[in-house]
Order: sequence, then C-alpha cells, then structure tokens
Amino acid sequence: MKNVNASIITIGDELLIGQVIDTNSAWIAKQLNGAGVSVKRRVAVGDSAEEIIQALDEEGSTSDIILLTGGLGPTSDDITKQVLCDYFGGKMVVNEGALENVKHLFEKVFKRPVSEINLQQAEVPDVCEVIQNTRGSAPGMIFYKENKIYISMPGVPYEMQGIIEESVIPLIKEKFELPTIIHRTILAGIGESALAELIQDFEKRLPKEIKLAYLPSYGMVRLRLSSVVLDKKDENRDIDSYFDELKILTKDFLVTDVDDSIPVVIGKLLQSKNKTMSTAESCTGGYISHLITAVPGSSKYYEGSIISYSYNVKETLLGVKESTLNTYGAVSEETVIEVLKGLISKINTDYGVAVSGIMGPDGGTVDKPVGTVWMAVGNSSNYQTQRISLRFKRERNIEVTAMMALNFLRKFIIAN
Amino acid sequence: MKNVNASIITIGDELLIGQVIDTNSAWIAKQLNGAGVSVKRRVAVGDSAEEIIQALDEEGSTSDIILLTGGLGPTSDDITKQVLCDYFGGKMVVNEGALENVKHLFEKVFKRPVSEINLQQAEVPDVCEVIQNTRGSAPGMIFYKENKIYISMPGVPYEMQGIIEESVIPLIKEKFELPTIIHRTILAGIGESALAELIQDFEKRLPKEIKLAYLPSYGMVRLRLSSVVLDKKDENRDIDSYFDELKILTKDFLVTDVDDSIPVVIGKLLQSKNKTMSTAESCTGGYISHLITAVPGSSKYYEGSIISYSYNVKETLLGVKESTLNTYGAVSEETVIEVLKGLISKINTDYGVAVSGIMGPDGGTVDKPVGTVWMAVGNSSNYQTQRISLRFKRERNIEVTAMMALNFLRKFIIAN
Repeated sequence: MKNVNASIITIGDELLIGQVIDTNSAWIAKQLNGAGVSVKRRVAVGDSAEEIIQALDEEGSTSDIILLTGGLGPTSDDITKQVLCDYFGGKMVVNEGALENVKHLFEKVFKRPVSEINLQQAEVPDVCEVIQNTRGSAPGMIFYKENKIYISMPGVPYEMQGIIEESVIPLIKEKFELPTIIHRTILAGIGESALAELIQDFEKRLPKEIKLAYLPSYGMVRLRLSSVVLDKKDENRDIDSYFDELKILTKDFLVTDVDDSIPVVIGKLLQSKNKTMSTAESCTGGYISHLITAVPGSSKYYEGSIISYSYNVKETLLGVKESTLNTYGAVSEETVIEVLKGLISKINTDYGVAVSGIMGPDGGTVDKPVGTVWMAVGNSSNYQTQRISLRFKRERNIEVTAMMALNFLRKFIIAN
Repeated sequence: MKNVNASIITIGDELLIGQVIDTNSAWIAKQLNGAGVSVKRRVAVGDSAEEIIQALDEEGSTSDIILLTGGLGPTSDDITKQVLCDYFGGKMVVNEGALENVKHLFEKVFKRPVSEINLQQAEVPDVCEVIQNTRGSAPGMIFYKENKIYISMPGVPYEMQGIIEESVIPLIKEKFELPTIIHRTILAGIGESALAELIQDFEKRLPKEIKLAYLPSYGMVRLRLSSVVLDKKDENRDIDSYFDELKILTKDFLVTDVDDSIPVVIGKLLQSKNKTMSTAESCTGGYISHLITAVPGSSKYYEGSIISYSYNVKETLLGVKESTLNTYGAVSEETVIEVLKGLISKINTDYGVAVSGIMGPDGGTVDKPVGTVWMAVGNSSNYQTQRISLRFKRERNIEVTAMMALNFLRKFIIAN
C-alpha cells in the first residue's frame, strides 16, 4: 500500500480579492483525511482559463486525485466547465439525468419556473462521468487522465458537501487501496513555548513516522500526533502509547483529549451530571451562547441567555443595582457578580457564566483599557471571578473572551 | 504602468487536514487589493521543505510579490525559516532588534520569563531584511531574488496583520508603481439565476475591462463590478456609469450599494433615525445578536437580547403564555408574536426581531420539518411575521436564518 495524495483547486475571483473566506478547502481536507487520503496542496485561482489550466497541469503532476470547486454556476463569470471540456478534449452535450434534476429542483423544491439559463446547467462535456447534485442545479463531473482522477464540483458549500459525502468518498474508496490516517489531539490550556519546553524530551524521542503539530487556539494550544498507517496490523499500536505519555506530561493543563471544542466538552460534562446552564453576556454580545447552541442537542442542558448591552437591560432584566453600575461601572467585578446572581435567579439553572468587558475599538479608559474583561462563573451557592486583559482587535477580543469564559466555566463545573 | 501580481503561500500541516480554516489568505488578499496589487494565486502547503521549495519556485515564476505565512513558531514542526535560509543561500545569525523585541515582549507584555526556545526566535537568515513584529516573537523577513520580493510572516493572524499594515503595504507602495483596483458591489435579495436573467443585456454590453462577478450569499447575491485602472485619469469614469445602471436594473431587490454587511446597514439605518433595537432568539441561539454586536459602536443602537432556548425562559422572561406554547408549539406564528411583544415590552426598544425554528439535525416533525422557522419583526404598534423553510444542516440553517431575519428587520425599519 502507498500514500494516496490529493490536491484541492478552488476557483473564483472572489477568493483572490478577499471577499469570501474559503471554508470549502478545510472541509474537503477533513473528509479526505478521514478516508485515508493525504492532501498535499491547496491552490486558489481566479476565473481565468489560463490560471485554471496551469493549476490542472501542476496538480495533475503532483497528486493522484485533483478536486476542483467553483465556477460551475449559470452566470457568465463561471467558466470552469468549458475550460475542463477543452482541457480533456470533449464537447458539450446535454446530460439527461442532470436535465431531469434541474427540472425537478425548480418544479418541486424551489417552486419557481425553470429558465433557459438554468437548463444550460444540464450541459456537460461528453468526456466526463456525471455526478448528480441532489442539492443544486450544477452537476459534479469526473474526468480520468493518465491514472489521475479529476473531480469538479460547485463552490456552494452545501452542494459540494452533498457531492463529497454521497459520491466522491465512496468513489475514492472503491478506486484506491487507502491507508489509515490516525490523529490524536489534546487541547492544553498553556502557551505554545511553555508547552514546547514541557515536552521537549518527549518530542526528541518521537519516531519520525509520528508527526507532532502545535496549533495555537485562543490562548491555548491544540497538540496533535499524526501517523499514516500503511500496514493495518500496526494500527494504533505506537501512536496510542505516545499519546498516553503526552497526556501524562500535560495533565495539569489538559482541557480535553479528544478533538472536541470546549462547548462540546461542556455539553458532555453537563449531560453526565444531568445539570443545566445559562449565560449573561455583555461584551461578547451572544457569541458564547452561539458557540453553545451550535452544538446539536444543546437544548438538553442550555436554557438561554440575557444579553445586556445597555445599563437598562442590566437593571431591569438582571436586577443589577443602579448604584453598583454608577459606582463601579459595567466592567467591574461587582457588576459581573450581580449579573451572575441575577441570571441564576431569573433563569434558574444549575450553572451560569457572566462576562462584561471592553472589546474596542472605542470605550477604553486609562483604568480599563480596551481588552479589559471581568467574568464570573457560579451556581446558586458559590461563584468565582477573574479579570483578563486582551490586546487584540474587536473581533478577536470577542472570540478569545468567549473561549476563556467557557474554559473558566468548564473548570468550575468540574470542581463544583 | 502595469499590473503588479502577488501570490500567497500559507504553510502548515493543519491547513491540509482541515483542522483550521485559512482566514489569513482572504485578509491578506483584501489588503493587497486595496493597495492596487492583484492576487494571482493562493497556495497552501504542509510543513515540508520539498513542498515549500516547490511553491517558492512556482510562485516566484508567476508573481512579482510572494507572501508567505506560517511555520515561524518556536517549535520543531516550524521549519519555514530554515527552508528560506537554505533557499536564499544564507546562514542563521542573531538579529539584535528581534532579540530586543523578544526580551521586551516577555518582560513587559507577557510578564513571563523568556526561555532559550523563545530567544531562538531572534535568529534569522543573514540574507534577509528583518521586519520587527510588534505583536509577537517571530520577526517578519524580506528576501529579494531576480526582481521578486518574498516576504515571510508568522501565521498567527493578529501578528501577521500588524506586519502587513505597518510594514508590508508601505514597502510595496514604495517599491512599485501601482494601479488602482476599483470594486463596486451591490447586495441583491434575489436568486442567482433570476438576477442573471434580469441583467443579461447589461452583461453583454459590459466592456471587457470591467469584470462582473456573482457571489451568492445566504439566499441573496453580491454582485461586483471590478476594474483595474492603469491610467489615473480614467479612474471611476466608466465603472460608475455602469454601476448606476446596475442599481437601476436591480432596484426592486437592492439591499445595499456599498460593500456593507446587513448588520452594518441596519446600524446605519437606526442611527440615521435615532432609534434602538433588541432581539429575542430561540433557534439562532445568539447568532443574530453576535452579528449585530460584532459591528463597532453597536451599543449606540443595540440594547440586548433574550435568548430563550427553553419553554421556561419564554414564559418567565418573555411572558409567552403556557397555553400558547402547549397549543401551537414553540415554533409557531402565535409564539413568535408573543415573544416579539414580550421583548419590546421588557427591553423597551423601538424595534425588535424574534425567531423560533428547528435547526436540526433532530427535532423535526411531519408538520414542522427541520428547517422550519417563524420570525416576527415589529415595533410597539405594528408587526409582521414570516415563515421560511430551509434545507441545510444545523450550522448553515442558523446562519441563513440570522441573515434572513436581519433582512426582514431591515425592510421593516425602512417602511416603519
């Protein structure tokens, strides 16, 4: 067995001017990795025939599988299909299955009349195998050339994901004998260089077939061991003993030893204790609540939030005293404690978390510069507070505050 | 004057297994575009000398400016600096400025002892110009080769952004005579193919130096005209007359004619009317509130939110009648109307928006499948409701619901 390599080519001018963030590549890479395919390169090019052809040439000489997304829409800036048709030496024909699909989608799903432009979506090069797109009008296309597989998919994430899950992964598993790619990940609540010193002897002893990666994440570090197992009988053997050692070395900082996010860890903790929680957010403006409720099934343990962006809401909904706000300000230990107590009494959950801070760019003072945050976590009988100082821009200040508040809550839940 | 092209190379195994989404490339592309540099390609490769060298060779033969991020950290998987040192034929030396910076950061900012590993961050190839990194310990590096500029930066977004803004953009403006890249964007509340039909004659008449791009976005379409202006005196002339025509053609669906997000549009609307708003979220779990509060200065018009993930919170904090919930369910027109009225009476803002729905994967029924959402927008005297049906997965259902609710609110604010 040998490594099977893939390249991902994303196509679209919007990727090169920064108007959209490419989330497709990461999603595809994760699916391929899970199936045992190593992603070697990802390339983004514009809606230009020359650029697309250059990428096809380069990636075709590098990888076994070349996946393309984007440029299959019905509008004039979408040129991928014609470029592929020319590149692989075909001509355009109407595909009956794709035609049926377009008609079905418009008549039954979108409930709109199907237009000439939509119908053109059913035209494909006669040198490809068509993958039906059950979620949209642009079909996927498979081309074979010199033992390489090229697969073109629409760039709309939801449509691309359907094609990958339903067709591409099964096809790849059928065509290739694939190794197993194993990852073991911990999340450690410690800085990158401190962690590196803690495990430097361990790192030196790691065999070269096990790779170690540090992935800094909101003031913490994800540490990942990876191994490509070409021979089934070796599976898990080595990597698990090294992983056990790593967990012991980092035990004082260990947040989780599975590749879970903190909101998922908290959800599992609360369900194991059969407890509930709520949040009271000011500066994070709903982001903590969003992270928690992005987890499927979170309604089992999450009751809700009071987001107080004004003094008015803090007073009327959370019962914070006007005198506390006037004396200490909204961003103070006194206020977050009252917010937390108000939250737990109003929503009546087992645990609560409250945050108040200044995220910037304006609102900072000499005593409380931008990045100052007070947070409190607690239950009906007990609470803890902490002050943090961040030095980022608004968006990242919000993200880091949310993650630190959730980690603070996680520790409180474990201890209480 | 001629086009100045750039390539962006992002380095890191984590980009190839899908563990992190590359947000750096889009951010860098936006900055370069704003300065008049056209981004030609973006490439992501792993922490492998062979891959990095291949990317340097390819991009060096394509672009005038090659920007690299990642692989400059203090840990053993970070190999970019050594690879660049070898590639450009140098040897490692300690840079005094970088050494001072590392010491300063640890002593004054992080307030932690500086370790041997940290100090190694001050070593750079003797064939580069150093860019001081005021936000972290890894310096940026500039290499020159055959009239091309190569700039290596850390992958931590906050550090990379500081280096780009403070050093890279000024350097590029100094070294190159740059054209102006002009974009004009509208956001239209209409599907892609319907929009394409509406403007197909306009599209055919567009001169080839003005490019038109369709960027689907949460059930709407961003439509962008772009033009590279090589001669200053032509600036704005053509593109603005076409843009005016486009706005007239799409006037019935026009959300905004500047490159603003809907939360920014709503913020501007509310401030122009001197009005306030609040939200009551169930299924979106705080995401609407997060989108609103991600906008700097949103505290001027946003008071807060009640996020009710349970019947309990809907009843006690929003005053929804138990009988309404029992008779019609949480996801019903009757309930969102009561939620909206409760919200406006409790938080007392000029406008409010309420949503309740089933985001999946579980919780759907025959009458109310996953993707069913009821939303209400209103003020103290008036309201409107709508039901939408989505067909995505949880994450995207939440995002699309939030954007549709905000657009519904935007229209209500304009009309009321």
